[in-house]
Amino acid sequence: MYGALDIGGTKIAGALVDAEGRVVVRSQRPTPARESADVLMAAVTSVVDDLAAYPEWASLSCLGIGSAGPVDTVAGTVSPVNIPAWRAFPLVEQVRRHPAVPRGMKPALIGDAVAMTAAEHWTGAAKGVANALCMVVSTGVGGGLILGGSVHAGTTGNAGHIGHITVDQNGPVCPCGARGCVERYASGTAIAAHALESGWAPPGGGPATAREVEISARGGDPRALAAFDRAGRALAAAIAATSALVELDLVVVGGGVSQAGEMLFAPLRHHLKSYAVLDFTRDVPVVPAELALDAGLIGAAAAGAAATGLSRAGAYATGRTSA
Amino acid sequence: MYGALDIGGTKIAGALVDAEGRVVVRSQRPTPARESADVLMAAVTSVVDDLAAYPEWASLSCLGIGSAGPVDTVAGTVSPVNIPAWRAFPLVEQVRRHPAVPRGMKPALIGDAVAMTAAEHWTGAAKGVANALCMVVSTGVGGGLILGGSVHAGTTGNAGHIGHITVDQNGPVCPCGARGCVERYASGTAIAAHALESGWAPPGGGPATAREVEISARGGDPRALAAFDRAGRALAAAIAATSALVELDLVVVGGGVSQAGEMLFAPLRHHLKSYAVLDFTRDVPVVPAELALDAGLIGAAAAGAAATGLSRAGAYATGRTSA
Repeated sequence: MYGALDIGGTKIAGALVDAEGRVVVRSQRPTPARESADVLMAAVTSVVDDLAAYPEWASLSCLGIGSAGPVDTVAGTVSPVNIPAWRAFPLVEQVRRHPAVPRGMKPALIGDAVAMTAAEHWTGAAKGVANALCMVVSTGVGGGLILGGSVHAGTTGNAGHIGHITVDQNGPVCPCGARGCVERYASGTAIAAHALESGWAPPGGGPATAREVEISARGGDPRALAAFDRAGRALAAAIAATSALVELDLVVVGGGVSQAGEMLFAPLRHHLKSYAVLDFTRDVPVVPAELALDAGLIGAAAAGAAATGLSRAGAYATGRTSA
Repeated sequence: MYGALDIGGTKIAGALVDAEGRVVVRSQRPTPARESADVLMAAVTSVVDDLAAYPEWASLSCLGIGSAGPVDTVAGTVSPVNIPAWRAFPLVEQVRRHPAVPRGMKPALIGDAVAMTAAEHWTGAAKGVANALCMVVSTGVGGGLILGGSVHAGTTGNAGHIGHITVDQNGPVCPCGARGCVERYASGTAIAAHALESGWAPPGGGPATAREVEISARGGDPRALAAFDRAGRALAAAIAATSALVELDLVVVGGGVSQAGEMLFAPLRHHLKSYAVLDFTRDVPVVPAELALDAGLIGAAAAGAAATGLSRAGAYATGRTSA
């Protein structure tokens, strides 16, 4: 049984996952995102308490933690953008000290987008693929890489950070400080903002979200369609760049905005033909993620298992897999 | 003794390299770049003949081939842009059949920029570094990656192709077919072209080269300075993107244009501060390559040795190395 924690800006989830990547038991608390570091940690402790109360906890062989980033897997600390009280917070050490965690078990830390990537590679759309980029297109844009059949998390666990690569060096300044980052075009926030700027208004009069833009786009609204086209184009340029840098066999796109389906995937694939033009970047398949809500937990479990040398979650696979 | 061949648009070189990465003997022929496939192969054969005539050939334990790209390391073929008669040319098989090549020895193929990367990692500026990007800024722009202490060549041997990642999705169309590729800003050709377009002329009245632009820039010519600034900016955006994607400990820049020294490195480092702004991308050192003319041969030897499981050329190293 692999233990997993998933720390996000809105919820803190925990699970026990079996060796086939199935969630067996699950617990969840809202994230007290505006509270103190201690109150936040108390919520994590409660989730671990819940899991430890299940009889399956006795079979716990490893523990993985996925967290909103940035993370520092060397230091074992997290500094989630949307959880201000945690800056370089020693989450790994704090979880390790929980009385229910077996002595000597060291939790493995992984960023949330890297966790999603590990999950898709273990049991989802990237299963058996040697070189894959998995993206989360949601409020922000994140990602992770599978290289040579294993998760490439990078020295500090933040590799695959595709939301903040520049696709327009003269583009708008991003909150991160750089210019023309993918996230400025392709996040749900950016899609809604661009539609609003071009004169679109949410059809129901409610809040301007990417979901509302999608509804208008399905109705043929050119401003809404243009916002998705712009998002797809930035994603295409970034995917092509990643493919030129590491050679990809597959691209997996998940996250809330990807639920728009062809409204996002069609322009993405269209523009990819213009940007991915080298022999080894052309025709890389782009497919939707297969795992939904539990991807973070399954990926955290995979990370814990891999760090402990336990599972086939990071098993090596060779060759190009077509979708 | 490691055998090495380096196939370029202007010369075909060969060497025997010792286990410390030193070139022991060397041979070279001009590339008959406009001739037939057979005439080209005859030049390669002559270089192998030369090497085989040395007594050190008797100690040959492996053979590596670095070639101008694109290459296909799976098929063992090369299609160098500047050698039109070779398209999907089966170079590995042709070299393997040379009578002097010991039976059962299969040459390892590697792209030229990946070869330069392997060489810098073995005995040059990236020695002992776990995660590095090595770039060649010359007539074109190429590169290669060291990830987790080993060369990451990609499925077909073309990974690290940083010259053709997009840094301006609305930028000028590149001969490759995409838009706003790094090479359109940072190659020697692009630097000279941009200076000319802004009204600069070569001071000696000779051909417009990046070297001539450099001379003018040293004299304070603002149009020449602007051309190097533009190149440095595109390189910075691309390096920042690569760092966000894979996490780099070091960037090495070589190639003819890098001989301009601070004229290129100063604007590159200046703009990198604007584009590499994440905790894990900030402050990655950018240093000049240490190996010059023989990097291609040394890297080809490293590839041959690594493919044969012989050397420490791809030895694993961990941790962040500062320059």
